[in-house]
Parts: sequence; C-alpha cells; structure tokens
Amino acid sequence: MLENLKQAVLEANLDLPKYQLVTFTWGNVSGIDREQGLVVIKPSGVPYEDLKAEDLVVVDLEGRVVEGTLKPSSDTPTHLALYRAFPAIGGIVHTHSPWATSWAQAGRGIPALGTTHADYFYGEVPCTRLMTEAEIKGAYELETGNVIIETFRDLDPAMVPGVLVNCHAPFSWGKDPHNAVHNAVVLEEVAKIGYRTFELNSAIQPMDQTLLDRHFLRKHGVNAYYGQK
Amino acid sequence: MLENLKQAVLEANLDLPKYQLVTFTWGNVSGIDREQGLVVIKPSGVPYEDLKAEDLVVVDLEGRVVEGTLKPSSDTPTHLALYRAFPAIGGIVHTHSPWATSWAQAGRGIPALGTTHADYFYGEVPCTRLMTEAEIKGAYELETGNVIIETFRDLDPAMVPGVLVNCHAPFSWGKDPHNAVHNAVVLEEVAKIGYRTFELNSAIQPMDQTLLDRHFLRKHGVNAYYGQK
Amino acid sequence: MLENLKQAVLEANLDLPKYQLVTFTWGNVSGIDREQGLVVIKPSGVPYEDLKAEDLVVVDLEGRVVEGTLKPSSDTPTHLALYRAFPAIGGIVHTHSPWATSWAQAGRGIPALGTTHADYFYGEVPCTRLMTEAEIKGAYELETGNVIIETFRDLDPAMVPGVLVNCHAPFSWGKDPHNAVHNAVVLEEVAKIGYRTFELNSAIQPMDQTLLDRHFLRKHGVNAYYGQK
Amino acid sequence: MLENLKQAVLEANLDLPKYQLVTFTWGNVSGIDREQGLVVIKPSGVPYEDLKAEDLVVVDLEGRVVEGTLKPSSDTPTHLALYRAFPAIGGIVHTHSPWATSWAQAGRGIPALGTTHADYFYGEVPCTRLMTEAEIKGAYELETGNVIIETFRDLDPAMVPGVLVNCHAPFSWGKDPHNAVHNAVVLEEVAKIGYRTFELNSAIQPMDQTLLDRHFLRKHGVNAYYGQK
Repeated sequence: MLENLKQAVLEANLDLPKYQLVTFTWGNVSGIDREQGLVVIKPSGVPYEDLKAEDLVVVDLEGRVVEGTLKPSSDTPTHLALYRAFPAIGGIVHTHSPWATSWAQAGRGIPALGTTHADYFYGEVPCTRLMTEAEIKGAYELETGNVIIETFRDLDPAMVPGVLVNCHAPFSWGKDPHNAVHNAVVLEEVAKIGYRTFELNSAIQPMDQTLLDRHFLRKHGVNAYYGQK
Repeated sequence: MLENLKQAVLEANLDLPKYQLVTFTWGNVSGIDREQGLVVIKPSGVPYEDLKAEDLVVVDLEGRVVEGTLKPSSDTPTHLALYRAFPAIGGIVHTHSPWATSWAQAGRGIPALGTTHADYFYGEVPCTRLMTEAEIKGAYELETGNVIIETFRDLDPAMVPGVLVNCHAPFSWGKDPHNAVHNAVVLEEVAKIGYRTFELNSAIQPMDQTLLDRHFLRKHGVNAYYGQK
Repeated sequence: MLENLKQAVLEANLDLPKYQLVTFTWGNVSGIDREQGLVVIKPSGVPYEDLKAEDLVVVDLEGRVVEGTLKPSSDTPTHLALYRAFPAIGGIVHTHSPWATSWAQAGRGIPALGTTHADYFYGEVPCTRLMTEAEIKGAYELETGNVIIETFRDLDPAMVPGVLVNCHAPFSWGKDPHNAVHNAVVLEEVAKIGYRTFELNSAIQPMDQTLLDRHFLRKHGVNAYYGQK
Repeated sequence: MLENLKQAVLEANLDLPKYQLVTFTWGNVSGIDREQGLVVIKPSGVPYEDLKAEDLVVVDLEGRVVEGTLKPSSDTPTHLALYRAFPAIGGIVHTHSPWATSWAQAGRGIPALGTTHADYFYGEVPCTRLMTEAEIKGAYELETGNVIIETFRDLDPAMVPGVLVNCHAPFSWGKDPHNAVHNAVVLEEVAKIGYRTFELNSAIQPMDQTLLDRHFLRKHGVNAYYGQK
C-alpha cells in the first residue's frame, strides 16, 4: 500500500545526508496520504545507508502501526500532531542540522534579514517557548507537537514552513516530503547567513515589509512569476 | 545562433554549483554578444544538473525573447540594465553565495583588507543603498539594476567587478561569463576572509593605498607581470 | 591473537579521517579485551591510508608490548590509565578535532545546551585543570590520564563519555572502539553547535535538568525507547 | 636536471588544492638543491590541474632562469630571499589559505594556545610589520622576503616554520617541499582553532612554556619519541 508515498518518503529521507542535514540517524522525514489518513515515516534509529522502502512504517493519525515490522521514529507523535493541526501540509522533516539547532539552543527565532529568507519564509522563523516540566515528563513527543502548534496560533504554516523547538532543533514541512526537505535545506542556509549577518551588524533589524512581500509573493503568490510555471 | 556564447554561458552556470556558490537554483549567469546586442541567460528555476545549452534563452537588450522556449531568469531585467550601463562587461553572475550575502544582509560593503582583495577589486566592494518602496513595488528587477548603477556613479565597474545589493545578495561581472564567475568566487572568498579579519581585529582599517595599487596593477595594469602573458 | 578486536580497532581508526576528525596522524583509537587484559592500539605516526590490522600493537595494561613490531601511539599511557580507572569502557579515542580542541584551548567545558548534547552526554563535557610543571615534565602521558581521572572523581564515565584536556584536545570513549568513535563525532558536533549558541546568546544557561533527563534516558536508560531494541 | 627535486616540487604543488589551501592559482611551492644552489618553482598563474614537471622553472639564487620556458612565480624573489637567509630550509610554500590569511589581514601573530600548535611551532607564528611605501613601490617581492627575515631576527626558522605577512598571507617552509606543505596545513589548522579559542575566551593567554617545550621536543628534539623513528 501507499507505494508512491513510500518511495517519496524514502527519497526524502535519503536527501537528508545528501544535503548534509544529518549526523548519524539524527533526522526523519514523513509524508501523509490525506485521503486515507495514513502517514509513512522513517523507522527509529535505522542508518540512512541501509534504509529501504519496505523499512518504512505506516501509521494512522492516532499513531497505530498499520504496516511495517520496525518501530516508527520516536518523533512520530510530533509529526502526527502537526498533520492533525496543519491540514495543508503533506510532508514533515525533523533534523538536528547544526546552524538551525544553534538558533534553537540559543532560544532565538531567525528574523527575516534578506531576500534569501523572504523567498521561502514569510517573516521570522519562530522559536517555541521552553516546555514545562509536566510537558517534558508527560507525553513528551506529543507535547513537542503541541508547543509548535501553540507557536503557530497566529501564523500560517504554509507561509512559514518551519520552526525551531527551543533547546532542541528544527522541524520543517511542505506540501509533500520532497518540498519539506527543500524547506529544511533553506532553513539551514538562512540560519547560517542570519548568524553571520548579526556578527557583522549586531544592530540589524528585520527587513522591510515591502521587500519581504515582493520576494515571497514572487515565488508563492497567485501572481508568482519565478520558475517555468 | 550564438552557439559559442551559449556554450560559455552553460559552462559558467555549471561552475556555480562546482564552486559551491549556489543552493538549488539560487543563481544565474548571462553573457552578451556586443555586436549583435544579444544576451544569453539561464532560464528561470531550472536545476543546474538538468541544464543544457538549448535551454538557454536569448534576449535583446530590451528583454524581448529572441530565441528559446523557456522563460528567462526573473533577474533578467537586472542583467540587462547592467549591460546597458557598463559597456565594458561581457558576463554577469548573480548568486546568494552565503558569505557575500551575509555582508549584503548586514548592509555593509567589504573594505579592501588585504592583498587577496586587492588582486581583484580596486577598493571596497560597495553595498547599495536600501531600495525605496516605490522601487520595490515597481519594476523591481530593473530597479535593482538601477540602484547598482547609481552605486557605481563614481566607480569603474572594470576596476571593481562586483557589488552587494543591500538586504539581498551579490552580483559580479567580468569580460566574459567565465571571468564573471571567477570574480564571484573571489568575492565569496574575500567576504569570508574579511568577516574573520573583523572578528580578530574589530578596529582594522582599509589597507594602505600603495599596497592596493601594487597588487591590483600587478595583475591588471598595463604593466601587469602576473601570469604567463 | 585478538583478530576480532584488531579488526574493530582498525575500522575505528579508519573512521577518524572518514568523519573528518583528524588532520594527518593526529588521532588514535584503542580497544580492550577485558578478559585477557590486553589493549590493541594504533602505532605512532602511521598515516591512516597505510594502516593495516597487522600494524596494530598489542600491549598489556602496564604498557608492555605483547605483539607487534611498531611502536604504539605515544598516547598509550593515557589510554591505559583510563582503561585501568574506568572498568566499564571498551574503546578510547583521542583526536585534535578542531571544534572540541577550540574549547579545550579555551579551558572551558561544554555545557549541555540542548537535546543533541543530552542524547549522549549526561551534563557538561568537562575540561580538566591545567597540568602542573611536575606532571608535564614527568610521565606526561600517564599524568594526562590521571588528570582526566581526577576530573571524573564525581562523574560516571559511562554517562559522560568524553573530556577536554585543557590546552590540548578531546578524549572520548565507549563500550567498544566503534562506539568511542561515535561519541567523538558527537562531541565534535556539540562543540560546534555549542560555540555558535554562545555567539547567538552569550547569556545562555545550561538546559533544564528535566529535559536533559528525558533525552539521555530516552536513549540510554533501562526504559530507553529510541532505536529498534 | 634536478628531476627528483622537480617531482617533489610538482607533488607538493598538487598537494595545495588537495588540502584545500588554495583557490585558483593562489599559491606556489618551491624546493632547493643546496649543493647546486638551484631552486625549482611553480610557473606564474598556471592552474594546478594543468601543471606538469616540465612546466616547473629552475632559477639560481639570484633569480636567473636556468631552465624552463615559462615565467617563474611572481613571488620568486621572496622565496629566494628566504633561501639565502635561512640555510637550513629546503622547501617554501606561499598560499592565501583563508584562516591564516585572516590573521595576516588582522595584523596579528597566532600565539601558541595549545598542543596542536606546540607540536609544530615553538611559540607564536609571528606577523610581520607593515611594509613601507618605499618597500612596496620598490622591489616589492624581494622586500616581502626582507621583512620576513627581519621578523626572524631573533627567531630560529627551523623552530617556527611559518610567518604571516601583514595585510597579505602566510609563508611556510620546511626541510623539503613536502614538509613545507605539511607545515602550511598545520598553520591553517592552528589559525582556525586559535580563532575559535579567542571567540570562546577572549582573555586566553599563551600556553605554559613547560607544556610548549614538552610537545615541541616530543616531536622535534634530539630525544623525540613520536612516530616510528
């Protein structure tokens, strides 16, 4: 079942080491079939070089394993919470990519500082609040999803396809697994460039709203004119 | 038509990933045939690994497509403005290379801090002023060219073959597409070394004019004595 | 003798250049057979590309060469001191990996600043005190081991599988040579991310103890639920 | 003539891109035959990927071309000045390797901050004074050699096999061309680690003299015990 989605999730997982987003097994990608309400996700702790389509695990939106012999990623409850709360997204990526993780550990969101950022993220990539002791001791991975959802109370996840979990690392998403990885690469790149921007100018302010609009909408609005479409 | 120029533009575009100047499709190279007044440029949003000579687009200096079935780069009006204003240049490169982009986002020009810089750029690589709301909402890519041209009012683009567009990223140029990419690589390198120089010595001043003269002219003056010519 | 251990030590040594932890011959891995009380270690100054299983040196816990025609690593007395003091460890790695070495040179331990760290190190990776003149002039490599052991007086080496030797570089260890290299890779990664975290937020404090517990125990406790076991 | 030396100089030059010390043609290696008083050096501006043994140029210690059809490196007078002043050295390398160049542009020597440095450089890698207008306008490359020699008035070039030319870039040397490149790699590495050490601890002081002695002499003294000799 879900052979096309499995193939897409496999390729997206293999893109994590290709784009140098992961050390060892520190990352996972999932994809969802919205019609069937089923999610395909990487198994926990399996090295990317050994990963095959048949290793992937199929779970329903409540986390019951529907297919697969391996345990799904320990981060599965976070993925599922995001799929339930953000109906427009089709793929999710979690990594500990080092530049984005540095911002997460610093507890800072990445402000929009230039057009590279504006081409993909419509404003700051937010950082969640610290989780409470009860959240950490409870259903930790589910609560990680909940604190992301809380952070997006007033944000559109389609306009800001990523987040930094405070003291932890980034999650990103997209219309499908491939697009989610694409956004993870961009997030790492804007984290790197943003870091250096602050080192060069510690007083820098978020970019002009008009320029942010222009670049985001040039690629994503109904009147987008970037690319061949 | 323009087969040699197309081949040169193709190779120059493929050099962008080779020299690690681009992520995804974030860059483009063009070249001009001055006699015919025609420009060959990368199509918009096409991945480098798929790019072929026949995908390149030929436009005239007013931006009319003369040959090619794909849409030219969305940055084409910037390229054309520079070709019209700087008659000595034969190739242009735009990238979001991360070190140069960090300076652009910080709104700072890169001062000449050592001989690496002086071998290629006769003084500071300037950063443009911020664009106005009217410029951003208007013919944005054309206005991007105009603000670069304004920045070079009192500068010779042959002596300073690159610029940082404020809050955006670098453009560089040269006598042909290959040379423009060469200068893009150097710009990224001096952006990196310059950044670290400031971290090591925040009070550093631009280099001595005599040393700047010596190095630039050793490579570029009529009495140049570097290389085999 | 010890063919399996030799093979494991060989592979672990070859992993050092693979993971970019070493320049030239600046690193070594050893492994111990606890039943026989014998240690297999890299010979001194042999390039990794030339290293073969038969080049490895077998020494007993007092440093007497039991097998092998080459001189063992000059750091052998440090390895042996650690094996004698830390009975639970089965492999040791020493490198001058650049990020961890920067912290060592700065004389600072790496505090636990996020979950990447917490997944492997239960708290700060400590930095030893500076060695005394007598220690340096005496049995220097043995004393290097002793100052590490002193640093772990109140720490469990199984919970914190690495250390920074002040003004020098890191040592890490694990249940076997492969695991020791794994921890060396993680140490370099958390050194990098930790450095950038401080640059982004110089007032950052060590992470919440509850979160540290959750992540460390998720991977290492008796109720660990990460991976396929 | 000098076929062995040419082969050694060729291989040493090709090691510069292998160890990522050069961008384009920004570097050169030479070697000397002390008996014949002849120096083999890279030709000016020839890309490394095209370089062959027969392209190398043989010059005498006064700079007269003795063999070869290409122009020698424009830095040849610097190399020759060092060979004349430092009789113990057999190979010289000049690069614009980015970390060492950052220190050179900052006008700062690299203090000995840890054992990685102490294993190769017996104390600070010094930075020359700025050159005078007369020196720059005169026989610039020869004067570059002279200012290095002046910097080593009270230093032994065999104990400190490298230097930073202020506002320019590093030179390093060794007993032969291969060893000179080895020292260039180490210089770049200690420049990187030293930079990060200062970022982590801006008050850091040069390392203890006893530890410096121990490490340098462990590898280089008459009682050296590192490696297989």
